[in-house]
Amino acid sequence: MRALDGVKVIDLTQAYSGPFCTMHMADHGAEVIKIERPGLGDQSRTWGPIKDGYSAYYAFLNRNKKSLSLDLRSEEGKEIFFRLIKDADVVCENFRVGAMEKLGLGYEKIKKINPRIIYASISGFGLNGPLAKLPAYDIVAQAVSGLMSITGFAGNPPTKVGPSVGDNYSGAYLALGICMALYKREKTGQGQRLDVAMVDTLFSILENAVVEYTVAGNVPGRNGNADPGIAPFDAFMAKDGMFVMGVGTNAMWKKLCDLMGRPDLFEDPRYLTNDDRCKNYLPDLKNNVEAYTLTKTKQELQEIMNEAGIPFGLIATVAEAAEHPQLQTREMLVEVDDPALGTIKIPGIPIKMHDTPGVVSQAAPLLGQNTDEVLNELGFSSEEIKTFHDRQVV
Amino acid sequence: MRALDGVKVIDLTQAYSGPFCTMHMADHGAEVIKIERPGLGDQSRTWGPIKDGYSAYYAFLNRNKKSLSLDLRSEEGKEIFFRLIKDADVVCENFRVGAMEKLGLGYEKIKKINPRIIYASISGFGLNGPLAKLPAYDIVAQAVSGLMSITGFAGNPPTKVGPSVGDNYSGAYLALGICMALYKREKTGQGQRLDVAMVDTLFSILENAVVEYTVAGNVPGRNGNADPGIAPFDAFMAKDGMFVMGVGTNAMWKKLCDLMGRPDLFEDPRYLTNDDRCKNYLPDLKNNVEAYTLTKTKQELQEIMNEAGIPFGLIATVAEAAEHPQLQTREMLVEVDDPALGTIKIPGIPIKMHDTPGVVSQAAPLLGQNTDEVLNELGFSSEEIKTFHDRQVV
Repeated sequence: MRALDGVKVIDLTQAYSGPFCTMHMADHGAEVIKIERPGLGDQSRTWGPIKDGYSAYYAFLNRNKKSLSLDLRSEEGKEIFFRLIKDADVVCENFRVGAMEKLGLGYEKIKKINPRIIYASISGFGLNGPLAKLPAYDIVAQAVSGLMSITGFAGNPPTKVGPSVGDNYSGAYLALGICMALYKREKTGQGQRLDVAMVDTLFSILENAVVEYTVAGNVPGRNGNADPGIAPFDAFMAKDGMFVMGVGTNAMWKKLCDLMGRPDLFEDPRYLTNDDRCKNYLPDLKNNVEAYTLTKTKQELQEIMNEAGIPFGLIATVAEAAEHPQLQTREMLVEVDDPALGTIKIPGIPIKMHDTPGVVSQAAPLLGQNTDEVLNELGFSSEEIKTFHDRQVV
Repeated sequence: MRALDGVKVIDLTQAYSGPFCTMHMADHGAEVIKIERPGLGDQSRTWGPIKDGYSAYYAFLNRNKKSLSLDLRSEEGKEIFFRLIKDADVVCENFRVGAMEKLGLGYEKIKKINPRIIYASISGFGLNGPLAKLPAYDIVAQAVSGLMSITGFAGNPPTKVGPSVGDNYSGAYLALGICMALYKREKTGQGQRLDVAMVDTLFSILENAVVEYTVAGNVPGRNGNADPGIAPFDAFMAKDGMFVMGVGTNAMWKKLCDLMGRPDLFEDPRYLTNDDRCKNYLPDLKNNVEAYTLTKTKQELQEIMNEAGIPFGLIATVAEAAEHPQLQTREMLVEVDDPALGTIKIPGIPIKMHDTPGVVSQAAPLLGQNTDEVLNELGFSSEEIKTFHDRQVV
């Protein structure tokens, strides 16, 4: 039993943002029917890493989904789509704003066929506003939202977050919106339209940076790895490399001073309060901390800080994170038998629902793998299905 | 009408992760009763920016919520809590793993009082596994998950994302889990336990970096602002500063070559395919692009690229983002009459539900602002309430 059993999603999304949304839904039991262009499919089928001609990018993101190849520009393709919509719960799309309407598949049209439908869109800038119709990639959203301006080091350029958080975060928000709409529909019987913009999304996660501007009147800059409001709270050097540590209270600070064999620092007027420690963090306090940490290995420091209850972390490579016993226990890598790539390991499920756990039960589909099965369920005859194939509608 | 009308959340969270989760729920109509320690309150009440002694950090994150001051260590406090639980839908907490059980408020106990309860926890490492009981801050999750190792520039140290995405993203995931559980409960009548870990969360958003390791056998490094798989797709210099641009298809590349007055580049064997452009990106292709962009201002380039349909963005400061007409149209800053801070502007609502829109209708509460009202609704008499105050239970 899974949380979204019985929910049917017609998934028109491609690339990363929309498929990340429907991945979470499929992991938790929704039937996700992914519509792909005949012969081409989702553009991410060409994205690296590629092995034996198949994309591992597509594979991790589209597990648990079905693939229906369908040409939405053809009249017959639209008829199939309208039939799909009749008993669906959700339509999800991430085309450029206006493209669904141009195809004749806009919300007003779909709602008439199925007023219970939840019609959910992701776009770069949102459905309205002066920039609505402009194309956007993740890097554009990271730039325009202000996120790049507060990531990185003060002397360096604005810095993009490595992975495409503009894409995946808007996908997660859209999944949240869809689930709220599903819950509401249980009460009212009515579906609705939703939209999430990549730029809105990233602006909403800037933490206190926004009120730092609107209330305090400061324009936040880049602070590297150090917390601007807590000290010492940063990345530091050990004898054999870098680690992170956060000292969030006076009690922790006292412990650290004792561990460093420097009880005098706890009495030092430059470091009495957290405010004092922030003001005198660079270069004094940081140097004092590293004078100690440079004498120990990361492993030694980890044991010492864990024992002392001071939050501490090694800076893992992706390989080290993937192999970490903690992440393994949490099943954050799962094995799947991919029809194209063989047995591969892909990221697991981050939302742990104890009674109705999500599960990766199915590898990502080959292009059109479920076409006949889906058409059959819709009531099309074998002959009709053959004709669709012949005419390259599917 | 809002999506989560009628949902009652008992919110034991503090700091950023849990309150971000319940903020989304409150924005969309849930009644969120925030339990705070008498006399102290949420630790974020002391976090900057501070104005007239009040925290704008607390203010933006706790709008639309009620504050009940309650000492959960006292027997009377627990009795009040158990009465609250009886008709609640959700309990949300982000204490250290094991702390709720130690208080006598663990899931097994609460479930007996209300089997419909959805009991939702955020922690650094999750409820199980070797590191479960260790404390973690956002920076620890960013380090241990591998995120820092793939953010920043190749020659520079691993880089933390500016805002605390380990906190807010796990909050967003928990909200998603809660809404899935609410939907499931409509079908089954049963609540359940949920848990989300900050490290799991960030590991789940590393995009193709994980399969790059598990399938292709490479350990991804830091790539600055450039996309490792598409070119030109990066931050570039204009005459008057930096901007971002992504050229994702051959058609766009042709357009760019024409705009630059360099049709020869489109024929250049070094740049024929996207793969070629990636291989020859540094320093050749980037230099060729900047030879053009350095002759124009950012504003000029913006007009040219918007016109050409090439995704383009100015790198906004937080101030520029906040004032952007696009974000203003999208109501991503809203005004609220804060009881402590006066009229302030705080981030708006990123999930746009067209029929049941979320709304910021209420400023964040003063500590214990709703204590008497909530106790009264629970059926306590004025005398009982007075006694609770006298004994500092509330």
